[in-house]
Amino acid sequence: MRRILFATILSLTAMPAALADEDIVLRGMGSFHIGGRVAEISGKPIREIVRQPGGPLTKYDPNGQFMAEQMYVQYFLPKNRKGKLPLLMWHGGGLTGVTYETTPDGREGWLNMFVRKGWDVYVSDAVERGRSGFSSPDVWPSEPTFLNYQDPYERFRIGEGAGSWNADPAKRKPIPGTQFPVESYGNFMKQNVPRWLSTDDAIIAAYVELVDKICPCAVLVHSQGASFGFKVAEKRPDKFKVIVAIEPATAGILANAPALKNVPVLMVFGDHVEEHPRWAAFKKIDLAYADAIRAAGGKVDVVNLPELGIKGNSHMLMMDKNNAVTADLIQKWLADKGLVD
Amino acid sequence: MRRILFATILSLTAMPAALADEDIVLRGMGSFHIGGRVAEISGKPIREIVRQPGGPLTKYDPNGQFMAEQMYVQYFLPKNRKGKLPLLMWHGGGLTGVTYETTPDGREGWLNMFVRKGWDVYVSDAVERGRSGFSSPDVWPSEPTFLNYQDPYERFRIGEGAGSWNADPAKRKPIPGTQFPVESYGNFMKQNVPRWLSTDDAIIAAYVELVDKICPCAVLVHSQGASFGFKVAEKRPDKFKVIVAIEPATAGILANAPALKNVPVLMVFGDHVEEHPRWAAFKKIDLAYADAIRAAGGKVDVVNLPELGIKGNSHMLMMDKNNAVTADLIQKWLADKGLVD
Repeated sequence: MRRILFATILSLTAMPAALADEDIVLRGMGSFHIGGRVAEISGKPIREIVRQPGGPLTKYDPNGQFMAEQMYVQYFLPKNRKGKLPLLMWHGGGLTGVTYETTPDGREGWLNMFVRKGWDVYVSDAVERGRSGFSSPDVWPSEPTFLNYQDPYERFRIGEGAGSWNADPAKRKPIPGTQFPVESYGNFMKQNVPRWLSTDDAIIAAYVELVDKICPCAVLVHSQGASFGFKVAEKRPDKFKVIVAIEPATAGILANAPALKNVPVLMVFGDHVEEHPRWAAFKKIDLAYADAIRAAGGKVDVVNLPELGIKGNSHMLMMDKNNAVTADLIQKWLADKGLVD
Repeated sequence: MRRILFATILSLTAMPAALADEDIVLRGMGSFHIGGRVAEISGKPIREIVRQPGGPLTKYDPNGQFMAEQMYVQYFLPKNRKGKLPLLMWHGGGLTGVTYETTPDGREGWLNMFVRKGWDVYVSDAVERGRSGFSSPDVWPSEPTFLNYQDPYERFRIGEGAGSWNADPAKRKPIPGTQFPVESYGNFMKQNVPRWLSTDDAIIAAYVELVDKICPCAVLVHSQGASFGFKVAEKRPDKFKVIVAIEPATAGILANAPALKNVPVLMVFGDHVEEHPRWAAFKKIDLAYADAIRAAGGKVDVVNLPELGIKGNSHMLMMDKNNAVTADLIQKWLADKGLVD
């Protein structure tokens, strides 16, 4: 079974990607916010602030009702619909839906590619990131974390691990043969946003509301987004027709994995995973989760790209130079699952 | 001249808006980040954090180089291009580009409407808002502000001023005849994001980079976005072919207004402006700025919607129930300026 999958996937690596100069014909596009709760704050001093230079003093009241933990979703609905279900794309930690829109070097991202392939695509910003907004320290007592330039370079398998970053681009040590557009690394840093470490439950709650509204769906998740995807699928297995997990970091709750026995899963890993202790550890957790799904009668396909001759992929597969190849690979798997007209 | 403008505008209020069920045909869509600077932080203690439940401890270093003050821009390029220039849309305080995407009650926003009218539309999130990300307290020492439910309701001319808000929707006092979709006010609150009060220079710097990249343009600005729009136009008057300022709050720097002598300006005000001291004060500043442009030989058209029989508009014109009427009014003005093929 795995061998057949690999054979069909290998055959498509030579297929042309969708032409980027074809028009995108949409029957609709738009956005909405979903989820959220009203947080009540009281007892804080009222003060006066100037909202714009030259403007008057206006009352600033940190008390009252505040919207908290809502989630932003943007959607694109192609006219020539070929995907049988909506395709949701959930990003990873420290990022937003921009992950799927564009690449650091300005090529089309998977959003455009999958819309061109005929999927209704819904791209969201997890709670507390991007256009979802975030809450005051009165609502969330913990502080956000911020990534410096060095961190993703060394952690996302762009550079050769610890010590590969240097402020001088000429002195950086990218992994030889990397598919990541290293010359545009600064643009990738511009896509990064702060994130909190205490908001997982709120994020999961908003995703549950999203799948209750939009699904049954195909759900594509990346990195931290996979841990949310699997956990939401455990709560709403009937809403997930398939999960495509790109470098999951990490999986769901092992004891709940049997809930996914009817949800086919594709896990995709890039290059040099085993050589990086952090990613090797994550992958072990992912594979144990996959085994637990299989033990309950479910199906999980694991694709290690280097085994297919697709080399050099970083953690940011959807931004790597061969993102059209990996998009086609995913499309083929979705078609094999009967989800493409 | 003003009378002629008003007559032509009045005639179009009966025109049908673009049909929302027509396809949107794009020759391209995508996003990018622009601007930003590298901020160096040093001397802060390194700590270890768990990035996801069950994951390993990983080093969190608050020192190093950080990307700061970049800006997110998303664009949609219609196949049947009729606008002669790119149309940039800049949102107001406490909001993001979502302002233009959708309305709280789920209708199409001005983004879709102007793409349907044939404009290349670029919607941005100001620095520190939405998908532009924000910086740590080490980079920006001031704190963000957060709006409670009461604030925009009473301040944006949705309710009848101070005291009109109530946590119980049945006890709220909306302005009679308001065009704002008050039944969906909670969805408007979901679109709100925190904002800093100390980042104006950074926001202006990023907008300058944007117009240097994309323009000459037509630039549509709202509320706080107008103060940025006028100030950027003062620095780059050759890049602005027109400015459409929706309820500007407020204007640019009065002494610099002559720089706009060759940039036709349309200012649009909704209903009940004069009855609200804050908006009346802002409008006075706006009109003084308009007079200073005129005194230098420039042209400013001021449209007070109620004088055209268009009643009930809140501060959030682009979300009001008659947003197709106001979009048509703006389109007519742009056509009168020779910017529509």
